[in-house]
Amino acid sequence: MNLAEFRASGHELIDWVADYLEGVEAQRVSPDVAPGDVRAMLPAHPPAAPEPWASVLDDLSRVIVPGIVHWQHPSYFAYFPSNTSYPSILGELLTAGLGVQGMSWVTSPACTEVETLMLDWMAELLDLPAGFRSDSSSGGGVIQGSASEAALVAILSARWRATGGAVNRDGDTSRLMAYASAQAHSSVEKGLRIAGIGTDRLRVVPHDESFAMRPDALASMIESDLAAGLVPCFVCSTHGTTSSMAFDPTPEIAAVCADAGAWLHVDAAMCGIAALSPEHRWVNDGVELADSYCTNPHKWMGVNFDCDLYWTADRAALLGALSILPEYLRSAAAETGAAIDYRDWQIPLGRRFRALKLWLTIRLDGIESIQVMVRRHVELAQRLVAEVRADDRFEIVAPHPLNLVCLRLVDGDTDELIERANATGEVLFTRTVLDGTPVLRFSIGTSTTEWRHVQAAWRLLRELA
Amino acid sequence: MNLAEFRASGHELIDWVADYLEGVEAQRVSPDVAPGDVRAMLPAHPPAAPEPWASVLDDLSRVIVPGIVHWQHPSYFAYFPSNTSYPSILGELLTAGLGVQGMSWVTSPACTEVETLMLDWMAELLDLPAGFRSDSSSGGGVIQGSASEAALVAILSARWRATGGAVNRDGDTSRLMAYASAQAHSSVEKGLRIAGIGTDRLRVVPHDESFAMRPDALASMIESDLAAGLVPCFVCSTHGTTSSMAFDPTPEIAAVCADAGAWLHVDAAMCGIAALSPEHRWVNDGVELADSYCTNPHKWMGVNFDCDLYWTADRAALLGALSILPEYLRSAAAETGAAIDYRDWQIPLGRRFRALKLWLTIRLDGIESIQVMVRRHVELAQRLVAEVRADDRFEIVAPHPLNLVCLRLVDGDTDELIERANATGEVLFTRTVLDGTPVLRFSIGTSTTEWRHVQAAWRLLRELA
Repeated sequence: MNLAEFRASGHELIDWVADYLEGVEAQRVSPDVAPGDVRAMLPAHPPAAPEPWASVLDDLSRVIVPGIVHWQHPSYFAYFPSNTSYPSILGELLTAGLGVQGMSWVTSPACTEVETLMLDWMAELLDLPAGFRSDSSSGGGVIQGSASEAALVAILSARWRATGGAVNRDGDTSRLMAYASAQAHSSVEKGLRIAGIGTDRLRVVPHDESFAMRPDALASMIESDLAAGLVPCFVCSTHGTTSSMAFDPTPEIAAVCADAGAWLHVDAAMCGIAALSPEHRWVNDGVELADSYCTNPHKWMGVNFDCDLYWTADRAALLGALSILPEYLRSAAAETGAAIDYRDWQIPLGRRFRALKLWLTIRLDGIESIQVMVRRHVELAQRLVAEVRADDRFEIVAPHPLNLVCLRLVDGDTDELIERANATGEVLFTRTVLDGTPVLRFSIGTSTTEWRHVQAAWRLLRELA
Repeated sequence: MNLAEFRASGHELIDWVADYLEGVEAQRVSPDVAPGDVRAMLPAHPPAAPEPWASVLDDLSRVIVPGIVHWQHPSYFAYFPSNTSYPSILGELLTAGLGVQGMSWVTSPACTEVETLMLDWMAELLDLPAGFRSDSSSGGGVIQGSASEAALVAILSARWRATGGAVNRDGDTSRLMAYASAQAHSSVEKGLRIAGIGTDRLRVVPHDESFAMRPDALASMIESDLAAGLVPCFVCSTHGTTSSMAFDPTPEIAAVCADAGAWLHVDAAMCGIAALSPEHRWVNDGVELADSYCTNPHKWMGVNFDCDLYWTADRAALLGALSILPEYLRSAAAETGAAIDYRDWQIPLGRRFRALKLWLTIRLDGIESIQVMVRRHVELAQRLVAEVRADDRFEIVAPHPLNLVCLRLVDGDTDELIERANATGEVLFTRTVLDGTPVLRFSIGTSTTEWRHVQAAWRLLRELA
């Protein structure tokens, strides 16, 4: 493909993407395919010669569009919000077009400095504590690929601090203990495993009837671990659990952590962004007491995956855990300490210029339009709650402070209801289990979702019930 | 930004990217900025209202272009090849525009199935062993974000296999030993640290005068560790080291690993792609004996970062180390085992539809054009070698089988030479240390680099010497 072809194909692809997003409502939300169907429509072997652009466009319509879940569909109510803004799409195009590496400041200064600025802008917009800002004495922020990586990085920081750095050399985690509720995201357990802190040393803290962690239970677990000579190392407090949007009480949890010297990570991946609206700022209550915090613009803010924002109040532990400087990365700039080298803030070495999509979204869409969208989603969820309450075949099984409503059939098979609703192609829901019972998660978060979509989905559920 | 504005801005951005790439040769290769300069040109606080597209375009020219290293510049000779193809840029645009998640098959079947097909296509094009293919009994491949993540995933697989899975529960790595030469990539040491196998348990295997690992030294280290009751767990053999493009002798290393039951990972991140050309297929000698292998289309194939291809012959160990299935991810498709869920093949949960950029590059550029480019880079490097040999102020300090030439001043400060050359803005080199001596790495890999660029860079070095 030469430059002229790139221009022509690029213009066509911009319009193709615009047409796709404009028309996505006409698609089934999830595809009607079985494992292997997509692959069977494509050549088993690579082409011997270059193909024309038109053949790619054909395959997009013939194979790809009918083979994906349409996460941007207004009747998509599954998993978590993952709306994509137009500026964010342009940001990704720009990132790819520039093709730079941001592993060190010196490998592309603007990549690092725009990222640092975006973390400070977002800290201001979310009203996060001063100790997370890049100009604070000991904190700072970075874009991670996902909240899973944020959790792992927090665990590694905790592990480093609890052992005075010795774990880097001896790998000895045998006395370290971690704590989270059963409602915490699976990435906490996965991260502990990866970090060599086996699941035997994860204490599952009981939760109350709102599915929030019980700080008294945490305190007694930590007390008995301390008495046994163990080292409470890491606690995850979730603000908006994946299953039901429960909020662990961080102020009380933080008091327990402070006494024990444990690292407190606040995982607000799914809904921390709600704090862009002042009336929802309570979602971050207590984060000024945390050692680390993350939230995902790639969930509820319109910024394409991947864009997780991770802040820490203890950058020394992060750098202690992850920094490494081989000869082939040494440079004068790295030696002075005047610049941030984000490679030492993350698991991988290489990194894309991900700050561009956040920068473009804030500048071109503006924060007010995101506030309006978040408010609308919350209002739609509350309207839905009123409708569900009026139908006694259904039961709401968890608090619903924001945009997620968890419901179940009182007498009936909720999992079957979900499967039948999804099979129509008109909606997509996902499930979870709360108190041992399957639950339908009705998550409202696509930027184009209106009341008519929620209403139609609810009507479908009532018909199928 | 509304849909009409997206179309108009998108067309402008496509042309902006095309103009940028067409004109990149006129830029300084690296920017003339000090830490803080870029940030100082931007507002300290986020805008209160949306800004026009034109203001973003202005900032791209005013702040971003003069603030980055131009990795696509034909006189960029630093770090590693990272050329970006036009189809790959379009692939990223498409990925962002579709905005789907590929964490499970069910979250977007085509995202998973196109990826599996691309791994099989690439295994065929690189002539990799049958045991890596998705239809093999025990192997398979996946796109990782980077070779660092590939190394970590390999270490976690090794750790799982060596402990029969117990490490997931007890985190006990106290008897596990790992082995790599001092020339292995820093991600091996970082990965071992992350995995809770401290650096005390990394044996640095001596290398020979070509900077390749000595299998006899590996064998005696393993022998004495076995005698001491330790468990040789993980060996990294590098095909094309970062510092000097040295090749560890995998067939001999594999024989040692097989005897000891250690996991053998082959890291061919920088140059495994050369095997697309049959005459360079030797770069993968012995990989049929490895447990895992990675190479990076985002280095020498024109596919945008991030795109690392990771294959394993032992998918059970990978899944044992990383799979986790919370209730909120359960689905009928996941239960049958008929589909691949790539979330269990990687560190994070979420994943982008990265296979699109690889698919578009293979189809639209074609493999032949990539073969031609790789051959040209190798030829340019060999022509450079002849010139360097004719100037006795310089010395070539390592074998140069491909596109990297390591040289130094015989009597002079090589680091200072690099700094002075880079300060002109006409070229960019990076350094390493070999045998205790600073070395200039002359890496030839940008798709637009011709002999005149190499020649001009060499002329500059001679003038400054």
